[in-house]
Order: sequence, then structure tokens, then C-alpha cells
Amino acid sequence: MLNSMQLTRAADYAVRVMIHLAGLPPGARASRADLAAIAECPEQFLSKVLQSLTHSGLVISHRGNTGGFELPTIHRNASMLEVIEALEGPVRLNVCLGAEDCTHQSGCPARNVWADAQRAMTDILRNASICELARKAERPELVAPLR
Amino acid sequence: MLNSMQLTRAADYAVRVMIHLAGLPPGARASRADLAAIAECPEQFLSKVLQSLTHSGLVISHRGNTGGFELPTIHRNASMLEVIEALEGPVRLNVCLGAEDCTHQSGCPARNVWADAQRAMTDILRNASICELARKAERPELVAPLR
Repeated sequence: MLNSMQLTRAADYAVRVMIHLAGLPPGARASRADLAAIAECPEQFLSKVLQSLTHSGLVISHRGNTGGFELPTIHRNASMLEVIEALEGPVRLNVCLGAEDCTHQSGCPARNVWADAQRAMTDILRNASICELARKAERPELVAPLR
Repeated sequence: MLNSMQLTRAADYAVRVMIHLAGLPPGARASRADLAAIAECPEQFLSKVLQSLTHSGLVISHRGNTGGFELPTIHRNASMLEVIEALEGPVRLNVCLGAEDCTHQSGCPARNVWADAQRAMTDILRNASICELARKAERPELVAPLR
């Protein structure tokens, strides 16, 4: 079951796939089987993730013998937020943030707090570039211990 | 369906119930029916929310004719984060943040980003006191338009 305010497994796999693709030389392709092994994800489940990424244009799918998945140059600087939203749609910490205004008769003073919390979280995900994370993946010494 | 990274309806109702109780004079009680009307929540669903709040000690339940739900003085300064976690357990933006360390063979450079995003979000929810929100609910002119 998905916990409250928790990323789906699909979006987590998508981020890992994108980081791997961003670490390949420009134009290089990876097979679905390779991506499944790297993301430690069942291949059938990864198909759906790759479908969403392809559908959003973040990833290009090539068919045939030399086929595979490629990160187009224009998306090498995609952010973690873009990858998540490609899978899940716009991040909304609370349903009320999707509405024009608070729909409760009495209004709700918590709505501004939800908006602030969402902004603080999405700002960090928007500033995290997949390409930069791929560089860190190649050089684990750049990854600080979890604070 | 619960969206990725979205608060459950139960936790949303819990926050609204707590804000209402914090706006009552100390020692005052509210009935389940009143709370359901104020939170705009089906009474049966609210029962479960009130059970969780009572179980966590954030709310006291009194039985009988003069019964009802009360916010004990020591919890008037509860934060939105405490209310959410009373319903949902610890906030974990990604499952990996519950583990001691990244469990993937290759490590994962995204984990620190998840940790930063979670911290940014929970800091805001931790600093939002229910009591302060109740004061704003009484004086809507204090609530800034959604930024």
C-alpha cells in the first residue's frame, strides 16, 4: 500500500532509469533488460514505467536489433520533479491545492501551510538535475552521507 | 485513489478537526456530529479519524450525556506534522528513507535529494502549530491569499 505522501514505486524506478541513461554517452541506448537489472525492477513492471517516460518524451524508444531506450540530448538536464510528474501528473500534497480556492464553507487556514510545504519540497526536486545525479553516481565519493 | 505524495483524506480531516478543537475554550468538548459537520466529513469515516487521534493521545474522548471530544491543554501546541503522523505514521517521501542505508547494490545518488525534500516539507509542517491556525481561522483577515 502506498503510504500517505509517499512516492510510488513506479516514479522511484523512473528516476533510477533516467539517472542511468543520463550517465551513458550521448546517443547510447540501453535495453529494457539492462534497465530492469539496474533499477532492480521486474521487467514487466518496468515496461509500464518506460511507456510513461516515452509517452512524455523524456525517453526515446528505438525498435529492432539495435533498439533500446535513449535519453535525448534536450532532456539530459531534466529535473527529478519532471520525471516524477511524467509518471504521476502534477504533485499535489493535498487535494485542495488542485482547486482554484478552498472549497470549504468556512475556509481553511491550513491551506497556505500545505502550499508552503509543497513548494519547499518541489523546489528541491526541481533543482535536482538527473544529469548531475548521474555524475554523482559515477563518483560515489561525491555523494555525502545521508544527513 | 491516493495520488503519489498526497495526504490521505483521513489526515486532512484530522487536521481540520484539531484546528476546530484548538479554537474552543480550554476544557470545552465537541460532539462527533459537530466535528463531522465542521470537517465536512461523513460521520462514520470521522469515527476512524477520531479513534486514531484518541489513540495517539492528541484528543481525549469523554463518554455520556456531557461527552464529546476535547483537546487536552498539553496538545494545544501540537504541530500539523504531529497530527499527520498520528494518523499515518512517520512521513517517508520515499521508502528508502525508512531504511538504514540505500539497499541498492549500486547505491543511489537520488536518496540525498529525497531526504532534503522530505526535510524541507516536514520542517514547514512541524512549525505550523494547530493553535496558531485556530487563531487564523477565527480571523480570516489574517490568512494571506494563497501564494
